[in-house]
Amino acid sequence: MGDNPLQKIMDPASISITGASNNFQKMGTIQLVNLLNSGYAGKVMPIHPREKTVLGRKAYPSVSDLPEAPELAVLVVPTPLVPEMLDAFGRIGTRHAVVITAGFGETGEDGRGLEREILRIARSHGIRFLGPNCLGILNTHQPLNITVAPILSFGGGLSLASQSGTYIAQTVGYLERNGITLGKAISVGNEADIDIVDCIEYLGDDGDTRAIGLYIEGVRDAAKFLECARKVSAGKPIVAQYVGGTEAGARSGSSHTGAMAGPDFVYDGLFAQAGVIRVNTIEEVYKYGWALACQPPPRGRRIAVLTNSGGPGSGIATTLDGAGLEVPEFSPGVQEKVSRFLPGHASPRNPVDLTFHMGMENMARNIPQVLFEAPEVDGVIIHGIMDTGFMELMYPSVKDYIPLAREDFLASMETPHLEPLLAMPEKYGKPLVISSFFDRSDHCIRVFHEHGIPCLDSPEKAAGAMGALHRYALVREKGLDRRTPSGRGPAPEEAQKVMAGVKGPAVDEFTAKSVLRAYGIPTAREILAKTAEEAFAAVRDLGWPVAVKACSPDIAHKTEANLVFLNVGDRAGLERACGAILAAGADILVARMIAGSREFMAGMSRHPGFPPCIMFGLGGVFAEAVKDFTIRLAPLSPADAFEMTGSLRAGALLGPFRGMGEADRGSLASLLVGLGNLALDFPSIKEIDLNPIIIENGRPCVADALMVIEQEERDGQQDT
Amino acid sequence: MGDNPLQKIMDPASISITGASNNFQKMGTIQLVNLLNSGYAGKVMPIHPREKTVLGRKAYPSVSDLPEAPELAVLVVPTPLVPEMLDAFGRIGTRHAVVITAGFGETGEDGRGLEREILRIARSHGIRFLGPNCLGILNTHQPLNITVAPILSFGGGLSLASQSGTYIAQTVGYLERNGITLGKAISVGNEADIDIVDCIEYLGDDGDTRAIGLYIEGVRDAAKFLECARKVSAGKPIVAQYVGGTEAGARSGSSHTGAMAGPDFVYDGLFAQAGVIRVNTIEEVYKYGWALACQPPPRGRRIAVLTNSGGPGSGIATTLDGAGLEVPEFSPGVQEKVSRFLPGHASPRNPVDLTFHMGMENMARNIPQVLFEAPEVDGVIIHGIMDTGFMELMYPSVKDYIPLAREDFLASMETPHLEPLLAMPEKYGKPLVISSFFDRSDHCIRVFHEHGIPCLDSPEKAAGAMGALHRYALVREKGLDRRTPSGRGPAPEEAQKVMAGVKGPAVDEFTAKSVLRAYGIPTAREILAKTAEEAFAAVRDLGWPVAVKACSPDIAHKTEANLVFLNVGDRAGLERACGAILAAGADILVARMIAGSREFMAGMSRHPGFPPCIMFGLGGVFAEAVKDFTIRLAPLSPADAFEMTGSLRAGALLGPFRGMGEADRGSLASLLVGLGNLALDFPSIKEIDLNPIIIENGRPCVADALMVIEQEERDGQQDT
Repeated sequence: MGDNPLQKIMDPASISITGASNNFQKMGTIQLVNLLNSGYAGKVMPIHPREKTVLGRKAYPSVSDLPEAPELAVLVVPTPLVPEMLDAFGRIGTRHAVVITAGFGETGEDGRGLEREILRIARSHGIRFLGPNCLGILNTHQPLNITVAPILSFGGGLSLASQSGTYIAQTVGYLERNGITLGKAISVGNEADIDIVDCIEYLGDDGDTRAIGLYIEGVRDAAKFLECARKVSAGKPIVAQYVGGTEAGARSGSSHTGAMAGPDFVYDGLFAQAGVIRVNTIEEVYKYGWALACQPPPRGRRIAVLTNSGGPGSGIATTLDGAGLEVPEFSPGVQEKVSRFLPGHASPRNPVDLTFHMGMENMARNIPQVLFEAPEVDGVIIHGIMDTGFMELMYPSVKDYIPLAREDFLASMETPHLEPLLAMPEKYGKPLVISSFFDRSDHCIRVFHEHGIPCLDSPEKAAGAMGALHRYALVREKGLDRRTPSGRGPAPEEAQKVMAGVKGPAVDEFTAKSVLRAYGIPTAREILAKTAEEAFAAVRDLGWPVAVKACSPDIAHKTEANLVFLNVGDRAGLERACGAILAAGADILVARMIAGSREFMAGMSRHPGFPPCIMFGLGGVFAEAVKDFTIRLAPLSPADAFEMTGSLRAGALLGPFRGMGEADRGSLASLLVGLGNLALDFPSIKEIDLNPIIIENGRPCVADALMVIEQEERDGQQDT
Repeated sequence: MGDNPLQKIMDPASISITGASNNFQKMGTIQLVNLLNSGYAGKVMPIHPREKTVLGRKAYPSVSDLPEAPELAVLVVPTPLVPEMLDAFGRIGTRHAVVITAGFGETGEDGRGLEREILRIARSHGIRFLGPNCLGILNTHQPLNITVAPILSFGGGLSLASQSGTYIAQTVGYLERNGITLGKAISVGNEADIDIVDCIEYLGDDGDTRAIGLYIEGVRDAAKFLECARKVSAGKPIVAQYVGGTEAGARSGSSHTGAMAGPDFVYDGLFAQAGVIRVNTIEEVYKYGWALACQPPPRGRRIAVLTNSGGPGSGIATTLDGAGLEVPEFSPGVQEKVSRFLPGHASPRNPVDLTFHMGMENMARNIPQVLFEAPEVDGVIIHGIMDTGFMELMYPSVKDYIPLAREDFLASMETPHLEPLLAMPEKYGKPLVISSFFDRSDHCIRVFHEHGIPCLDSPEKAAGAMGALHRYALVREKGLDRRTPSGRGPAPEEAQKVMAGVKGPAVDEFTAKSVLRAYGIPTAREILAKTAEEAFAAVRDLGWPVAVKACSPDIAHKTEANLVFLNVGDRAGLERACGAILAAGADILVARMIAGSREFMAGMSRHPGFPPCIMFGLGGVFAEAVKDFTIRLAPLSPADAFEMTGSLRAGALLGPFRGMGEADRGSLASLLVGLGNLALDFPSIKEIDLNPIIIENGRPCVADALMVIEQEERDGQQDT
């Protein structure tokens, strides 16, 4: 990393803050309060035009009055003052800033102009900055806090970067209640300079950060995101929520930070390719992120579930199943060991249901010891450990009947010895997740919180957290950092030659396929004919039966125009087909009939801020109704492409299926890699649609191809 | 209802409890404590063999010593004592009981015998009882509490019935923190007598209950569940979690209560047909159930979202979109009215982002007033209302700098006038849901809790709760209580005649189709031939081209055996086909070729405890890979069947699609109704598989049919 600007921003030796005063109604004041109270050890220099001191610290009337250039400038001043303040800091030698002030790009054209202006000023001084329109930063390791909320706990392994300041600065109480301690947190605001990818890079290299949580409304440069995130995710889990995929989500997001949203499925592909664990709620960013920061990923899929009730056990088992994990029945040996600690009728099979009991030694120590030791167990979830929480709940009811004071009553419940359990995850290299409906009023929950054992407040969420750990295990297995796109030289000569002669918007099928073939993409052998006689001659070469199709850049919807004739088996049929096609003013494409009933599709589309998006999906006429497809970004590594072929819901079709042999996924993957290279070589190609791709004797063959060239004006012909 | 036994059980004039003592380590004691502390106004008579008083109440040495027959007997005694105790209560005239004691059906064969025994005893006395192996009941309206946890708040509208006692008795603290007040709650245990359907019936008629939450591991009689739940759901929302659909989930559940689990998709169908809102977590049962109990369902899909930050606004909008709701941009008129209360750059479009501000009048009163009044808004979600929660958080940081005591500081934040907002949902008949990361330490949150305004602890959950309200609006629209299955007389004579001659396990296609036709299910015209000559004669009747297939009960997999010849267009082809079929020892089925490229499938399967399960799905060779299908239970009402045809992911195929006309969903629905009737008429039919059903000129036609007859021994031939 070396020169990531966030190193200095997150760990500055000195800070000057402008916009703080002694008025607690001002946001800057709150931010200074939090900075001072965070325990920050560096020098703090408030700037205020009139006050001599601010919150008891000597204040300086202006930037030029500062005794030294602060390593970090924090600006919470009115919008119009930002350019001159930034310039002033640059002149005295400050090189890092956090611009909290809003009123820039998020407000419209004028604001965008002002944002360009401060970027220009910053660049002129070599200043790197966060914001504008951000809510500050948090580093509980340093410690350093420039947000509107206090730090409640210190030194956690989960770090955040967020395009919404709320999720950095407005959830501290919530996180504390849930036992989640942040390490570092960055509100990126409008990302005029430093963006969320810089944050991923910084947090990826940061020794204090063990998992990264992201809240994303849109990324500006998906290629840069992909390159960075896939390196980081190989060594450190990244969990992310993306919310820009709907019209209203995008409207809300972009009005806020001006970030660039795109269709949801494109982000699905980006995250999958980058090894980012996608989640759907901010709760999952926090809670699964915390689990990922604290617990090792499971080495396999076999999870042991220990509860004091069948209900939570079933909820956990069902959710684990949905997450691709298993709750296998234990071997007789493990069942026998577990049984020693079970009451009469309880089942040792997995889930283990201890039934309700106030003594905790079996649930919190003896049985977990058996489970962690068992080689057949890859991870453990426990529901039901508690002590004082239950007693607190009961005390008001029983106090009239017992001679004990509240404290003595609470103490009367045996406190489980949790130390052995707390040590098991690290000792055995297996994750432990706790499910509990109790909160921090329960002593056990507080102990778990303090020791980095994730406590989820429902059985299903505990299972979900284990699912996230499993997803990370799968990411790590992939070795994404070692994936490199296939080598790509200049565009093949044949393709260059053909493309040079192409006029848009639509490209005829014969031409499109010749370009595809130049990239090694298999198509049926086919011959272009101008007359029925030429077509008949072609059949002599290809053999009956043939497919006969109209070929013209002006006819994109051949099927709907009834100009596709499949399985033509004799001369009479061929002549009928040619007659119809010639009458429509098109050339005749005669192709060998491809034999196969499994149909897939592949395609390429472009989205702002993204490299070419390559799609693979279930094909045929009904593809658009079935909507079973996956996306990755070009250039594809062979491994990326191979994974795509395994990502369909209907993936079973590619295996041996109802008497059909296994499809050659390697050839399908090559096809996708080639499609990506083609798209990269010719940016003028706006859209490619290969549908169907028929599996013939196990190998893919493109039966139809549509290619659309970028034109200034949209003309509707790109619809397929 | 009239004679639902739960009326008396949930509201008894007197209770005798056996198993309570003065020892607080005993569960029965805890239950008596909670009964006494709940404020129960009726007579309580503990039974104890030795103690003179229990918890200060006079105790009776045995049942026969009681001064009167209690209306309700509660048994928490050791398992072997239950039969004699129940008998003793029966003899003195008690007619209702709750058997908390475990050790019955859930423990194995002996336990099942004992469970049958107590059922026999109960029936001999006319006793109706809950349990065994349950955790008691709760009625916060009476009030009455016989669980192991205290009542913390009273009189809520959400009532529960649960097959896990934990979800009745172990979550009170959790519910209190989340502002959820139960009305009534029933732990059903092993359901030896009273089952979860009785609970639905009781709660459906209960005036205190406004929404019903269910936790289900399996239902014993799905037909009874369906009949009851669809009546209840027409007037009162039911939200349910089912967890028995996976192997481990079923293992955990059944080991617990011995309930009957089944495949997940069957329960999906049952719940859809019954108008039950299915959720995947117990948190959703509670939180969405609470929203359903407190708020009216939205009249349309248009939700207004008001926040103090873009992040939560985007999360809410994206989640609403996924739930089938909309966040439409407001009309200029509404935008103008909203703008009056917005700071400079904030957007009035929807979501409305007020940006962070300590003053709450606009967020909590002025803008909601505009939104509730607007006819274009069907429901409102607000994120960001708070007061003391934020101040509590800040006080430790600012206390050194301000001269205010904690209370004065807290009071220094303006407390919003919430009364107008609290009244808006009822006044305008539109739902309000609050999203907040604050908890009950915030005064506003406490006020919302007390006034039945659901507060969810994340933006996405608030949107999810609104989604549940919307789902209930859709259920109510359907008028499920007015749906009746199509009238069904005796089985058609033709079907009876054919079925009388059928030997299993497999039924040949020609025979199967003749049965189908007797139920009005359209098939292609077809003729059975014994020789090629007969087949040729058949074609004279049917016309070229034809489908030629082997027809034999011994050949279930015709396609895989290469004995299906489609599109046979001439005599030579016909003879080739006949030759192959005759060589395989089969008859020749000659059928008119059905022309159409849209293929669906329908089927029937049987599951223990369920009426025949009718399936409709995407068809063709690849159906099993695509797995796009829906289930309902026979007998189907025409409306049920029609809904099925609209329930596929690939539902777009049935509309006008790529040049094909709209499919006749009414005819498809009739086909499904007929299939259900057929299955009901002939219980010996184990499985029916109609695949493909081809849409020809818009109407469905069954192209292939497989029917399997129940036999004592499974022989594998039922696989298709």
